[in-house]
Amino acid sequence: MSFDTLQELIRKKKNPLCVGLAPTAENIPPQLLRDCREGSGDSLETLARAAWEFDRGLIEALAETVPAVEVHCAYYERLGWRGMEALERTIAYAHERGLFVIADGQWGGARAEARAYGEAWLGRTQVGSRVQTAFGADCITVNGYMGSDGILPFLEICREEDKCFFVVVKTSNLGAGELQDLVAGDRLVYEVTGDLAQRLGRGTEGRYGYHRVGAVIGTAYPAGLRELRGRLENTFFLVPGYGAGESGAEDARFAFDRYGRGAILSASGPILEAWKGTGREGLDYQKAARTAAQEIRDELRSCVTIL
Amino acid sequence: MSFDTLQELIRKKKNPLCVGLAPTAENIPPQLLRDCREGSGDSLETLARAAWEFDRGLIEALAETVPAVEVHCAYYERLGWRGMEALERTIAYAHERGLFVIADGQWGGARAEARAYGEAWLGRTQVGSRVQTAFGADCITVNGYMGSDGILPFLEICREEDKCFFVVVKTSNLGAGELQDLVAGDRLVYEVTGDLAQRLGRGTEGRYGYHRVGAVIGTAYPAGLRELRGRLENTFFLVPGYGAGESGAEDARFAFDRYGRGAILSASGPILEAWKGTGREGLDYQKAARTAAQEIRDELRSCVTIL
Repeated sequence: MSFDTLQELIRKKKNPLCVGLAPTAENIPPQLLRDCREGSGDSLETLARAAWEFDRGLIEALAETVPAVEVHCAYYERLGWRGMEALERTIAYAHERGLFVIADGQWGGARAEARAYGEAWLGRTQVGSRVQTAFGADCITVNGYMGSDGILPFLEICREEDKCFFVVVKTSNLGAGELQDLVAGDRLVYEVTGDLAQRLGRGTEGRYGYHRVGAVIGTAYPAGLRELRGRLENTFFLVPGYGAGESGAEDARFAFDRYGRGAILSASGPILEAWKGTGREGLDYQKAARTAAQEIRDELRSCVTIL
Repeated sequence: MSFDTLQELIRKKKNPLCVGLAPTAENIPPQLLRDCREGSGDSLETLARAAWEFDRGLIEALAETVPAVEVHCAYYERLGWRGMEALERTIAYAHERGLFVIADGQWGGARAEARAYGEAWLGRTQVGSRVQTAFGADCITVNGYMGSDGILPFLEICREEDKCFFVVVKTSNLGAGELQDLVAGDRLVYEVTGDLAQRLGRGTEGRYGYHRVGAVIGTAYPAGLRELRGRLENTFFLVPGYGAGESGAEDARFAFDRYGRGAILSASGPILEAWKGTGREGLDYQKAARTAAQEIRDELRSCVTIL
């Protein structure tokens, strides 16, 4: 599933927003957590089971509204191997419900190691006479600090499997600029990273003009977003943390091309924790998540027309 | 377990070399792989079981020779959640045998996400009334592209748990220079990353003068290694890929301070695949691994005196 597939799902649902799944003891509704304690008490096993139930409920509630889910691996790894088992289930269920799956792990390594990560998350592994799939996401995030041979093994797998990935180019956290905004010759470091993604992806463009090497671009600086959209015209953008900072639809619209294509936004907290605002102790978490996701979708629709 | 503990293990075994565990269908001895096929055929389950058996055998064979193991997570993730279960067992068994455990995953994220990764790999997670450990390594690798707030959450956990980590500063793969060697003002990008690690770690020095924020430094350029050793004088180094490129003990010695401290080298292929050179189909993989590790240790001893 390449960016073509994602773009078509975005168009079909008229929504360029994906939900970021990141289950924690704090955002899983209390009743759901209690139901999962039976037999396993306060343990990672309980939390992993609750994580899967929460994900399942969210996917069920949102499958008609959003085109994709982004699974944030940190929150599953924190639960040990049981968390990884929950994650495999979540990915499989999202696929069952017709959603595109982005796995966020910022994987980094060169050559053999990058290849192994690619096979783990996007590809397949040969075991004797059989070919097996581990996590089987459609798209992942990759760290570009190691340069071309940290990126090309992922691209190789994406060509084989018809998949795609995002290189982390520009983030919007406080310390992001310490490395990313350094001036190197006539470019900033994040522009070098972005240009690298654009250059390596060239020749793999799909029907909407976007190649297989996307870019993660934070929204903190709308001017920067606009500049990067112009600079990396064939690079699909993943814009994380929608609704988490001070930026909203007005800023995020600069991520899209003139057809309203070429970008997906991701929101986590505002959807996962929407139940905290209704006073019903999370019993209505599905409805609350759907309402929150629809509100963001409508905000986005008012600023971006997707052709 | 901080770098003090690691330094003491290095001194005790008079060996600054750790073994990089990275089980694959190609480096697991054929007989061991066949023994694990029973009941599960050609599957990820088989491979995960064989990965654990191989790791167990290697740790058993090497526990007297090496101070530490470095687990390369890519190769476990490729086996899905069963691979992660094998990895948990491997880490626990390495601890049982008194080894220091470095988990290599180049984790990256900011604030909450970095905190979650840190809890997953180094820390603990609160579940209701109980505190639980997921992977429980002693030390990890971290990507610094996100700047301070991508590094500080790991440091915070390391202070709480008496642990430590390495920021990826300079790697030795072909494309490494594309970003890392850019000139930014009066420094190169990798020097900026290294200085950041050194600055953030300040104040957490242990009894040998090394703070909790180490640096991954590739060996491809011995001159660069020497320069970085001088520049980052309180930063512990992890030098990966020993024996994989053209550099050997003669080059690697520049990673150490004048007391022969402050660095650990990592070798994987030359030890894991040593059985391929003895003509015994891997039946002697433990002996072959031990001999290979002892040879590298002796090479290193001839160039570096550890006080």
